Amino acid sequence: MNVTVQGRTRHYRTVTFDHARNAVLLVEQRLLPHEFKIIATKNFRETAAAIRDMVVRGAGAIGATAAYGLAQGALAFRGHDLQKFRRHVEIVCQTLKAARPTAVDPVNAMNGVRATMRAGKTVEEQQKLALAAAEEFASEDVAHCEAIGRQGARLIRRGMKILTHCNAGWLAFVDVGTATAPMYAAQAQGKKFHVFCDETRPRSQGATLTAWELAQQKISHQVIADNAAGHLMQRGEIDLVIVGSDRTLGRTGEVANKIGTYTKAVLAKRHGIPFYVAIPLSTIDWNLKRGFDIPIEERCESEVLGAWGTMAAPNSELRTPNSDRRVYIRVANPASGARNPGFDVTPPELITGIITPAGIFKPKELWLRRRELGFGG
Amino acid sequence: MNVTVQGRTRHYRTVTFDHARNAVLLVEQRLLPHEFKIIATKNFRETAAAIRDMVVRGAGAIGATAAYGLAQGALAFRGHDLQKFRRHVEIVCQTLKAARPTAVDPVNAMNGVRATMRAGKTVEEQQKLALAAAEEFASEDVAHCEAIGRQGARLIRRGMKILTHCNAGWLAFVDVGTATAPMYAAQAQGKKFHVFCDETRPRSQGATLTAWELAQQKISHQVIADNAAGHLMQRGEIDLVIVGSDRTLGRTGEVANKIGTYTKAVLAKRHGIPFYVAIPLSTIDWNLKRGFDIPIEERCESEVLGAWGTMAAPNSELRTPNSDRRVYIRVANPASGARNPGFDVTPPELITGIITPAGIFKPKELWLRRRELGFGG
Repeated sequence: MNVTVQGRTRHYRTVTFDHARNAVLLVEQRLLPHEFKIIATKNFRETAAAIRDMVVRGAGAIGATAAYGLAQGALAFRGHDLQKFRRHVEIVCQTLKAARPTAVDPVNAMNGVRATMRAGKTVEEQQKLALAAAEEFASEDVAHCEAIGRQGARLIRRGMKILTHCNAGWLAFVDVGTATAPMYAAQAQGKKFHVFCDETRPRSQGATLTAWELAQQKISHQVIADNAAGHLMQRGEIDLVIVGSDRTLGRTGEVANKIGTYTKAVLAKRHGIPFYVAIPLSTIDWNLKRGFDIPIEERCESEVLGAWGTMAAPNSELRTPNSDRRVYIRVANPASGARNPGFDVTPPELITGIITPAGIFKPKELWLRRRELGFGG
Repeated sequence: MNVTVQGRTRHYRTVTFDHARNAVLLVEQRLLPHEFKIIATKNFRETAAAIRDMVVRGAGAIGATAAYGLAQGALAFRGHDLQKFRRHVEIVCQTLKAARPTAVDPVNAMNGVRATMRAGKTVEEQQKLALAAAEEFASEDVAHCEAIGRQGARLIRRGMKILTHCNAGWLAFVDVGTATAPMYAAQAQGKKFHVFCDETRPRSQGATLTAWELAQQKISHQVIADNAAGHLMQRGEIDLVIVGSDRTLGRTGEVANKIGTYTKAVLAKRHGIPFYVAIPLSTIDWNLKRGFDIPIEERCESEVLGAWGTMAAPNSELRTPNSDRRVYIRVANPASGARNPGFDVTPPELITGIITPAGIFKPKELWLRRRELGFGG
């Protein structure tokens, strides 16, 4: 999407590949929203480190990064011995996989690249196929998000006030994003609307990443405390909710997403406000039978007990922090601990619809349409 | 309540009076939870400044501070001319009132003190009566909170997990608090239970003040992100919710309290978890006819866009910040703004009961019992 740096607006993707330098180019997300910077990884080990160290995060984005990292590693191989090449590729894959051992997207992405590579009869052919497959993976990720945008844009009417939670934006994918895709598409259609970004404590991805995306895209928006959505709904100030999902159960229509999503769904239901979840089909889990069985990661308590940001004066010069140094502060009582569940599960009866590249479905419809949506594919 | 400073545990009130020095002694709440300090105001102007600058906050606490500040100002008067004394007292009252012009508690407290003073026939008699009335006001505040504790303690059973929001603890009153009163009373009865403190963004009073109170009182507790309560309720990890209230409508049973309270009430209702509001009778508004008419203060956006705390290392030495310097950091995207409603209104159908010093009532019962609860009194 668009990013304006020093007055100049350009289009960027979260992840791209520089063939001339055999480098993966990544938006350094740890510096956002305070600084926009593209970094280039020189080899697959650096690419793995970028995944591990959260330079890049989000399902689609780390999938594409792993795919490109695999191509990068394959292209770095010198020689014609297919046997040695295969061993090298195995090491590349293991290194990239180990960067985020519980993430499924890098593994799926690399499996796809390797399947394509097998058609090559020489090292050189396989190298070319690896890069082509990685480019294909990234393009498909973008195409899926654009299709979500086309499907979802019709839900957005002029003047609407939309709530979103966390960041399911282009920074989490190769481009466009999922929850943000309908917004970007509606904007392209000339519709004006306003977005409330839930701050999304404890990591504040709504206040940092989503707010940054919307500001760059010049979409009217405001950050709100996670506590404020209920009040705004009660006063008729929210017309539509769109969120993303880390995992959606194909069998039940339950949606796992960032902690707090469930709360917003409960509030939306009470107020008769449509609640939509935007997802690529790849995040549908067709196997798991109960949302209760989704493991809920208990994250580090320091996230809840403090916050990250840049030193700034609270009142004067509000929007220009006087230092770019990112710091952690302890907010909570020093002698107290915290609970920090990272995700929650929203049941299907609270979800108006699931926006996919293939259409908008009721949660329970996913299973009925499983063949066309790629179950077993 | 108890505070342990350098290994020594003592009982403190938020506000007390030192007759020998004619000083109001206040817990300097702006330093909490990182430092516990009692400050002494030398004259009524310093006392007013302490109210204005939020050294002391909370309905009961600023009421008592204003009452003591009035006595302090009266006692500082030298001479026997009742006429001049009355003019002096008028200036004292105006100064204290202007410190928090929208707060009703200082005005009510000072009106009570002045009514008592009128019985005095000389300056000296009126001075004595002023101090006696201020002491009476503070003692009554404590007695009311203790009565709330006795009423509410029977709701707390061994092993319960209790959620509270914001700080309606002893720091907001002269002692004991309201939402915390049943917890302190249950603890005194030997019951063991666990409290989840909602962080309560944007000002984080749950993570700072309530967590500090509970830690000092050695009550088992954890801070949670405001996003986490829904998930914990869904998993059966919360048995009871107790919150305070800034204003409860006697006619409708609607409860105005810190932003996010309504959300917790909606979640509790969905999960069949009892939701109680603990209040002194003085916070019941017998006049207003609709909760919708309660003005909702829109606070400074910097509260939502950033956070206050002390510099600390996020992972190592988690519980011992390496600096006591309190700083503000900008968390959100620097180019984004915020909405920041300070309060919300919870309707009576979401409230299991209102815990008052006179008993626990259904919200709609308040109006039926208005005579015994002091309506028109």
